[in-house]
Amino acid sequence: MGMTGNNNFTVIADGSITTPKGFKAGGLHCGLKKTDRYDLGAIVCDVPAWAAGVYTLNAFQAAPLGVTRESIAAEGKLQAMIVNSGNANACTGRQGEEDARAMRSEAAKAFGVPEHYVGVTSTGVIGELLPMDKVIRGIRSLPREVKADGAGDFCQAILTTDLVQKMTCVAVTVNGRTVHIAGAAKGSGMIHPNMATMLGFMTTDAEIGSADLQKLLSEVTDETFNMITVDGDTSTNDMVVVMASGLSGSGRLTPEHPDWPAFAAGFRFVAEYLAKAIARDGEGATKLIEVSVKGAVSREAARAIAKTVIGSSLVKSACFGADANWGRIIAAVGRAGQPVDPSAVDIRIGDISVLEQSRPIPFDEDKAAEYLRGDFVQLYLDLHMGSATATAWGCDLTYDYVRINAAYRT
Amino acid sequence: MGMTGNNNFTVIADGSITTPKGFKAGGLHCGLKKTDRYDLGAIVCDVPAWAAGVYTLNAFQAAPLGVTRESIAAEGKLQAMIVNSGNANACTGRQGEEDARAMRSEAAKAFGVPEHYVGVTSTGVIGELLPMDKVIRGIRSLPREVKADGAGDFCQAILTTDLVQKMTCVAVTVNGRTVHIAGAAKGSGMIHPNMATMLGFMTTDAEIGSADLQKLLSEVTDETFNMITVDGDTSTNDMVVVMASGLSGSGRLTPEHPDWPAFAAGFRFVAEYLAKAIARDGEGATKLIEVSVKGAVSREAARAIAKTVIGSSLVKSACFGADANWGRIIAAVGRAGQPVDPSAVDIRIGDISVLEQSRPIPFDEDKAAEYLRGDFVQLYLDLHMGSATATAWGCDLTYDYVRINAAYRT
Repeated sequence: MGMTGNNNFTVIADGSITTPKGFKAGGLHCGLKKTDRYDLGAIVCDVPAWAAGVYTLNAFQAAPLGVTRESIAAEGKLQAMIVNSGNANACTGRQGEEDARAMRSEAAKAFGVPEHYVGVTSTGVIGELLPMDKVIRGIRSLPREVKADGAGDFCQAILTTDLVQKMTCVAVTVNGRTVHIAGAAKGSGMIHPNMATMLGFMTTDAEIGSADLQKLLSEVTDETFNMITVDGDTSTNDMVVVMASGLSGSGRLTPEHPDWPAFAAGFRFVAEYLAKAIARDGEGATKLIEVSVKGAVSREAARAIAKTVIGSSLVKSACFGADANWGRIIAAVGRAGQPVDPSAVDIRIGDISVLEQSRPIPFDEDKAAEYLRGDFVQLYLDLHMGSATATAWGCDLTYDYVRINAAYRT
Repeated sequence: MGMTGNNNFTVIADGSITTPKGFKAGGLHCGLKKTDRYDLGAIVCDVPAWAAGVYTLNAFQAAPLGVTRESIAAEGKLQAMIVNSGNANACTGRQGEEDARAMRSEAAKAFGVPEHYVGVTSTGVIGELLPMDKVIRGIRSLPREVKADGAGDFCQAILTTDLVQKMTCVAVTVNGRTVHIAGAAKGSGMIHPNMATMLGFMTTDAEIGSADLQKLLSEVTDETFNMITVDGDTSTNDMVVVMASGLSGSGRLTPEHPDWPAFAAGFRFVAEYLAKAIARDGEGATKLIEVSVKGAVSREAARAIAKTVIGSSLVKSACFGADANWGRIIAAVGRAGQPVDPSAVDIRIGDISVLEQSRPIPFDEDKAAEYLRGDFVQLYLDLHMGSATATAWGCDLTYDYVRINAAYRT
């Protein structure tokens, strides 16, 4: 990413995915959710926007992902992203593919853009066909709901078991002019009770080619969205899509541009903000947990160890119980299948050192418990073997996780 | 394993690890557990027994494992296995190694056998030094407690959060004479609250060399103990040790012997029985779950998929909630990182078909829920890609799992 030079950015407190120039958004209730909450939404750009996407690695990729990928492949551009919640259109066979295509063509007609400028995403129940009459009627009504102040409605339309909306926006300076980068996301488990999906939508008014955008998105996703886990389950529908309108008027941005580092830093901030917001809003979670690994022999080792620790049910339960149980942390490190020196590991819980050079350090259990009762817990690991680092995010494992996921679907 | 020919064996209803000829066992309370439950035990053989062991792959292997491995390496024989619960002697550094060696030398003196005929195992809290005065006093008292009917006492001495004792014994015929194979195990999570360990102890009066015994144990472990998961955490202390006294008088047994298949089948039964008993007694579990995969491209693929499904928190929660949520099963299959044909998967829950050729099959939800409320749930997957199979065992994820693991250690 060439993270040298200026990488300043500013968080826009009341910013949204429609703050970047050229974007509108909106949502409505078309009848997929049993409540009257919105279940169909769209982000629309005044002009064809450069676009990039990353998709789940699950072998059972849901139908809409292929359609979106195909659209972006045509010209590297999107002008409208349409999304429904309440039904994932996953494991729905040939009919599911036809339905995803029908959503694309209806949206193209509704917004007056070519089909290959439309992306489609779905989230919800796996294995049920979409009630296409409701969806099509909804899509035809969408244009009146899509507006400059419709980001909140859009966010409602993408939520399933999420408790909070997840959106942020930053500003960076490119060629002396302001460029905005914004994002919205949903996701509360890698898969929900019977819902599928983590979805991320990013918008920017930077002028940036789709190849550069794709490279940046892939790199940043690897360090943000791909470093969170709620329950270790990777859904069939995960997707992050970014659209760049180029309407900031700040001129073409490339990795060689002196303002690229600032743009990349802002872009990464938005992705990391959304990723952490998803982890914090994990099903049943009471706190966000961050695991930072340093001193690993390679980036892969650091990532694998960070993800193994953050994914451990025992570590997650200990955080819920405010138990400074470092034995579980060290055991998770040891089973990650990565090179570790069993006699050289340091562990800190917040600023409390509990293990140094693999030797237990006496610490104040009450102070540690008080720290762990907070809503943000940081665990630090130093392997003292190399210089590679990684950070992963997750949440605690609670009674409510079990309650939510044991509940019968009906 | 050469599983052809006769492979009959008989389960001995009241058999134990002291049923095979030559073995005695026992236990006592030396003061490691806060309650008055036994916390120190031993299995002793009248003669040096051929021995084999398998050990955790966790990088932070506890001190006793190295000592046991060293003993077996000397002559391939053991005459006494000593075990304590309440303290894992893991992450205890050089002092931990010295303590494990001291346990070995004290036990050698107490039982009047050479040091390299003694194996040592520990289970319990990670990261605390053993109170060696209590342990040594206990070891010196052990010989009076070790007796032909002491298997129950031994079992009590190896338990931590386990709710039930896990022991079985079978008889097979070798050269027309009866040979016994027995086993006892402990383990209720791969790691307990702050306890470490799955331990397995097997005894037999067959006459079998340690190389053949090691090969059989490794093969069988791979398909039994290594195919269970309670919470995905591999402990620092996991170990299975087998001792063969040869006192059945049935003559030397080798893989080429016509009665080998019967012996191997009985051996596997004991290992599988113990493995399933551990899964069923998983922390907070209300049921045993069995996942059978067939039609995979390779054994590795079948194993990985079976273990991914059985390890999925969402599948486990669904089983607890008696929810026939096959979307979670297919999603777990898809993220196992193995070759699957997304259009060719069958899923059965018990005898209820829910997915055929990846197409949802209408089924009776009430009947499925009734089946899932039972204490043994079988999930069948057919990938229709090859001929490889695998079976894995686990348990449901319940409120009690969270309660047990969130509880403060003190």
